[in-house]
Amino acid sequence: MKEWIYFFDLCGTAVFALSGALAAGRHRMDPFGVIVLASVTAIGGGSIRDALLGTTPVFWIRDPNYIIVILATVLLTLIFIRKPKKVPQYTLPVADALGLALFTVIGAEKALNLGLSGMIAVVMGLITGVGGGIIRDILCRQVPMILRTEIYATASIFGGISYTCAIAWGLADKVALAVAMISALVIRLAAIKWHLRLPAFDLKKT
Amino acid sequence: MKEWIYFFDLCGTAVFALSGALAAGRHRMDPFGVIVLASVTAIGGGSIRDALLGTTPVFWIRDPNYIIVILATVLLTLIFIRKPKKVPQYTLPVADALGLALFTVIGAEKALNLGLSGMIAVVMGLITGVGGGIIRDILCRQVPMILRTEIYATASIFGGISYTCAIAWGLADKVALAVAMISALVIRLAAIKWHLRLPAFDLKKT
Amino acid sequence: MKEWIYFFDLCGTAVFALSGALAAGRHRMDPFGVIVLASVTAIGGGSIRDALLGTTPVFWIRDPNYIIVILATVLLTLIFIRKPKKVPQYTLPVADALGLALFTVIGAEKALNLGLSGMIAVVMGLITGVGGGIIRDILCRQVPMILRTEIYATASIFGGISYTCAIAWGLADKVALAVAMISALVIRLAAIKWHLRLPAFDLKKT
Repeated sequence: MKEWIYFFDLCGTAVFALSGALAAGRHRMDPFGVIVLASVTAIGGGSIRDALLGTTPVFWIRDPNYIIVILATVLLTLIFIRKPKKVPQYTLPVADALGLALFTVIGAEKALNLGLSGMIAVVMGLITGVGGGIIRDILCRQVPMILRTEIYATASIFGGISYTCAIAWGLADKVALAVAMISALVIRLAAIKWHLRLPAFDLKKT
Repeated sequence: MKEWIYFFDLCGTAVFALSGALAAGRHRMDPFGVIVLASVTAIGGGSIRDALLGTTPVFWIRDPNYIIVILATVLLTLIFIRKPKKVPQYTLPVADALGLALFTVIGAEKALNLGLSGMIAVVMGLITGVGGGIIRDILCRQVPMILRTEIYATASIFGGISYTCAIAWGLADKVALAVAMISALVIRLAAIKWHLRLPAFDLKKT
Repeated sequence: MKEWIYFFDLCGTAVFALSGALAAGRHRMDPFGVIVLASVTAIGGGSIRDALLGTTPVFWIRDPNYIIVILATVLLTLIFIRKPKKVPQYTLPVADALGLALFTVIGAEKALNLGLSGMIAVVMGLITGVGGGIIRDILCRQVPMILRTEIYATASIFGGISYTCAIAWGLADKVALAVAMISALVIRLAAIKWHLRLPAFDLKKT
């Protein structure tokens, strides 16, 4: 894998580990519980992707750096964030958005690298991007972000489509990654900021 | 795979995608959320089956038609079903029952094709049949159907046993499939219609 | 695999199947629902481990004894435990603790056998030990044990660390297994008995 993609992958791991650790703190989990929730959030999506692709053992078994990044992130979180007041309201959703954008592109890149089609690459980006957060929300018994009406899966799908199109159009890898990541991130952050939502499919009985 | 089994597999994908899309509509999800929920419902069970069997990449990565069927089903659902009133009360459970019956037989068939025992084939039918619906219900924070007291897993297990016995007794594949699918479907539909349930194992403290 | 490890593995399967069956009884599930819940509890963690490691088909597909042990356990539970009063208050948590200790060591042992590092072995022990219980709790819509503040994941992580250290220090396999299992079990049982908990990471807004 290209070094800078690897670097972004570890960054995504750190921000998702942070988002898992913050969610754990809101549920008053003990330090080892924090490690578990940070881990499933950070490597859950990529693990599902690798298991479905059959590229096993999954990535974090082959490369211990992912676990080390998670442990370091949890340690720093436990040391430096001791009071709820120190966590600005938007920290968790913004960390989640950054991880979503990074992991979407990385998931799509891995699928294209395996010679899979653009459509499957978008799906793999989506699974990598939203998988960990869904597991985190289910374990915390919160409404999964993906269920809330704000734009979420949409941002990942748009990021994946941008990336695969950019690659198909012959853009340089770095440019494609930047374009796709920024588009997913901007869409998601705008959705958080202004509570944007697409028109809902509404079958709710009133 | 035989063509007509493939055809039934795509039918099962469509009805489970419909059931996922209807569930998404009840939670007012946006169109991309609908696609996600329809997809996990339609291909979740088979994905777990393939990951456990190690027949990876899982089926829908190898064959894009599954994703295409899901996208088409979601599109048609979004276009034609716009009001709750248009969805008769039993649409979701009946679609779910049809998918359950179809996927149970297909899961059992795949296991037998790999040379696995009848017992494992029944389990694989069960995982394929109920897996997607369980993920859908967990994501929607509903009581998983499998937890409710009505006959549900039972229908799938009976369907799987019928199929493996019919094959073991030397019935033609088509006959075995028809017998098993109809028996699972009839059991499940009867359970929906008359609220049939087996005697419960009751340790609830009162 | 060594015979006595295999024996312990089947014991762990039985106690986790019991814990799943008891949880099913509390939700008044029918006999086939009981089988499903007992099965996911007993083989869920190991299945995730094998899928992540890529040692597929997963263990219970290769060896039917696991399913047979589960079916026998469910049958005995259904026959002999008919009234809530007959289940002492601590039965479920103690069965869960025993399974946790057994499966942690077995998961770590399998990882070391594959030549993986001690760190990954601890993670594999954790996944094997807590995976099934988490799925059981999610299906039953209970707060996953791992989320509750009592020492839980911690017991598994300590057991895994004990085992990998004991093996690294050259202790005989049987001694290492006994030391690790007993340490995990004692930690967990003590936590149940005296409601021990580690200091929580508390970001709950009051």
